[in-house]
Amino acid sequence: MERAIYFLDQKDMPTRWYNVLPDLPEPLPAVLHPGTGQPVTPDDLAPLFPVGLIMQEFSPENYIEIPDEVQEIYRTWRPTALHRAYRLEKALDTPAKIFYKYEGTSAAGSHKPNTAVAQAYYNKVEGIKRITTETGAGQWGSALAMGCMLFGIELKVYMVRVSYEQKPYRRILMETWGARVIPSPSSDTNAGRNMLAKDPDCPGSLGLAISEAVEDAATREDTHYSLGSVLNHVLLHQTIIGQEARKQMEMADCYPDIIVGCVGGGSNFAGMFLPFIKDKITGKKPRLRIINVEPESCPTLTKGLYAYDFGDAAGMTPLLKMFTLGHEFMPPPVHAGGLRYHGMAPIICHLHKLGLVEAVAVPQVATFEAGVTFARTEGIISAPETNHAIRATIDEALKCKESGESKVILLAHSGHGHFDMAAYESYLSGKLTDYEYPEEKVKAALASLPRVPGA
Amino acid sequence: MERAIYFLDQKDMPTRWYNVLPDLPEPLPAVLHPGTGQPVTPDDLAPLFPVGLIMQEFSPENYIEIPDEVQEIYRTWRPTALHRAYRLEKALDTPAKIFYKYEGTSAAGSHKPNTAVAQAYYNKVEGIKRITTETGAGQWGSALAMGCMLFGIELKVYMVRVSYEQKPYRRILMETWGARVIPSPSSDTNAGRNMLAKDPDCPGSLGLAISEAVEDAATREDTHYSLGSVLNHVLLHQTIIGQEARKQMEMADCYPDIIVGCVGGGSNFAGMFLPFIKDKITGKKPRLRIINVEPESCPTLTKGLYAYDFGDAAGMTPLLKMFTLGHEFMPPPVHAGGLRYHGMAPIICHLHKLGLVEAVAVPQVATFEAGVTFARTEGIISAPETNHAIRATIDEALKCKESGESKVILLAHSGHGHFDMAAYESYLSGKLTDYEYPEEKVKAALASLPRVPGA
Repeated sequence: MERAIYFLDQKDMPTRWYNVLPDLPEPLPAVLHPGTGQPVTPDDLAPLFPVGLIMQEFSPENYIEIPDEVQEIYRTWRPTALHRAYRLEKALDTPAKIFYKYEGTSAAGSHKPNTAVAQAYYNKVEGIKRITTETGAGQWGSALAMGCMLFGIELKVYMVRVSYEQKPYRRILMETWGARVIPSPSSDTNAGRNMLAKDPDCPGSLGLAISEAVEDAATREDTHYSLGSVLNHVLLHQTIIGQEARKQMEMADCYPDIIVGCVGGGSNFAGMFLPFIKDKITGKKPRLRIINVEPESCPTLTKGLYAYDFGDAAGMTPLLKMFTLGHEFMPPPVHAGGLRYHGMAPIICHLHKLGLVEAVAVPQVATFEAGVTFARTEGIISAPETNHAIRATIDEALKCKESGESKVILLAHSGHGHFDMAAYESYLSGKLTDYEYPEEKVKAALASLPRVPGA
Repeated sequence: MERAIYFLDQKDMPTRWYNVLPDLPEPLPAVLHPGTGQPVTPDDLAPLFPVGLIMQEFSPENYIEIPDEVQEIYRTWRPTALHRAYRLEKALDTPAKIFYKYEGTSAAGSHKPNTAVAQAYYNKVEGIKRITTETGAGQWGSALAMGCMLFGIELKVYMVRVSYEQKPYRRILMETWGARVIPSPSSDTNAGRNMLAKDPDCPGSLGLAISEAVEDAATREDTHYSLGSVLNHVLLHQTIIGQEARKQMEMADCYPDIIVGCVGGGSNFAGMFLPFIKDKITGKKPRLRIINVEPESCPTLTKGLYAYDFGDAAGMTPLLKMFTLGHEFMPPPVHAGGLRYHGMAPIICHLHKLGLVEAVAVPQVATFEAGVTFARTEGIISAPETNHAIRATIDEALKCKESGESKVILLAHSGHGHFDMAAYESYLSGKLTDYEYPEEKVKAALASLPRVPGA
């Protein structure tokens, strides 16, 4: 019988993160200070982030050692398994070989702890006692709660009020790991109080929750802020995924023709494909295809503008050069909350601009159809975000069926959907709908892009 | 750095289940027909179970080959990892070495698919098109839904109404895997209709749900019934756990001094310890301790009577010789729904009677305290059932701290608690309480034990 799971022995777990910055064919555009239009310096970031992470954000080194303390925690669930999806292949009657790297076996059920643990560690080293963050559906907040708890750091999570009230289970998950979770808008910050004065029943938004978390951190000496995606150091931490996958694909005696993953801020998928992309940059694997999959209703890479924009909705962050739908754009309420982001990691955007990666947008109902196919063949019930990647994987596998090609597809599977059953119910009962691309709202949001001073 | 996870290569996954029956120092007491008092024959069981499973129930063979089709599905998540709980050991400041075998990485999040897949397979081989079962909180129903879906068998789950209404997520999980789930009592069976006529608002019970599922299966030619624990063949299928653990403990160059697990019907823990117990039976490891952990409010092994009783609450099954609190006993509503069973697997009871295994009962609040300690050290949020085993593991590790002994403890970790966050919330908010042992109710239930004809 063929092997369907490739485990990597723990002694072969990567001990360094891979940093793509020095391997880029052209340097990444600078992050700009919104007031001066000049590149931000490490000092500009120091009130919010520890030096260890700031150095990673700009590092020219190809590899960065994973601290022993972080490895020690990674080792409670890593390396994660690489699976061959024989049963899915059979159901699709495709000659394609489908592999998936499954991050759902972490305690939080997703890839997010890979960076949460690292971020908590570097804050701990710097003597930080307290961290703030925001969370929407709770995926990031719960991973950071786990990370902070393991290093004895206090965590306060500003959770979008509508999620706080409608999705109590992720909140309790965070509380079980010792975090304090409060609904945003809250009366704990100026940003929150101002909003509550205007609208006492405000349901909150991710943008506002970021504003509250950043304000909290910026106004307290003992407190830092933590972000779960987008930034270079976050992508860096996720490269443990792709480095493991490379070794496991070697065990399977295969190299991917196509790598597929979903992108919101982009950290999970970049973590998978970055350790492969040097092969494409150097021309060793010129035909390697890397497919970023996003929601049709929030099509950052496929319909966004490549421009400088704020990373947050409230316009408090430095300016990032990225594909964006405008920081004021509020994406439709698709179940894949993790993909509802107006921008995209600058590294991915840069690679996309250079033609090294491609992107595709898929509609919501089709993603759940794909997710149910996956659940009914491979067993795993996947997160709604992951279903986007599964949709594109199935589409590519079906093209192989047409063409008769036996391509090797590697799917970045970001996590399980055990906290998302209400979304599956909506699909199974026929109530789930697609959201049209909100073209007018995007146009309006793009009209409000920030001006770069001096540009 | 020491290894914290022991993966077993898939080529070393056991290809046979271990059957303890021929190794028992005294034969297992016969299962009796309630009408005649005579041992049941395979023919008596044929209306409900496929021949393949009935043969396993009585098999004199030491090992039974795992069919290729079952192995193929096991290989979508097996072998499961063995972890060394370094961080828990450190937090407890114990010289004990704690290992845990984690079954939470299956698609259903528990050990239940090990038997669900096998049971679905043998029914499939026999041409059975439809299976019925009951479920309480939904753990078993969802695993069987996955198993039946993978073999194309229709599944109807009678789900205790109060759970159906209060715990929709497990229901949706079952539906995502294609099962039909209806609240019990239902109008689909005589048992259900009779109850609804008496009490239209009846919240249901596991006993009644069993009655409905059995009646449905017994009255339809194309339908069988499936049980998730207690019976010999169910324990047999779970022995893949302990066989893998043996190999992994060898990788760690350790042999357990103590094996700990929680028991409701007993299948998960028996699956772990049976592959080790021959060492104790043969005198090779005379001091090996095997600790069954049960709720103080449902203390089958520690306070029950060793007698013939029905396996179900309604009194429809053959008579099993087991420790029992009386089939009419309704355990208090502890969150560990999987441990709320009046009886216990006859194999475990027999071993307990022979003094080969021991048992301990723990109160509910202390189990969650242990579970939160585990979550805050090892990361994993465990099922309420598993928290019972974690409690006893921690207690043994603390005894080692007292005595200075560096014992090796092997914990059977049956699954994650991502569907049980409401229970954690209850604990964290200080609302969770212990239930006293309901001595009078047990006395009353034991007074209604069935008479064995001719005895």
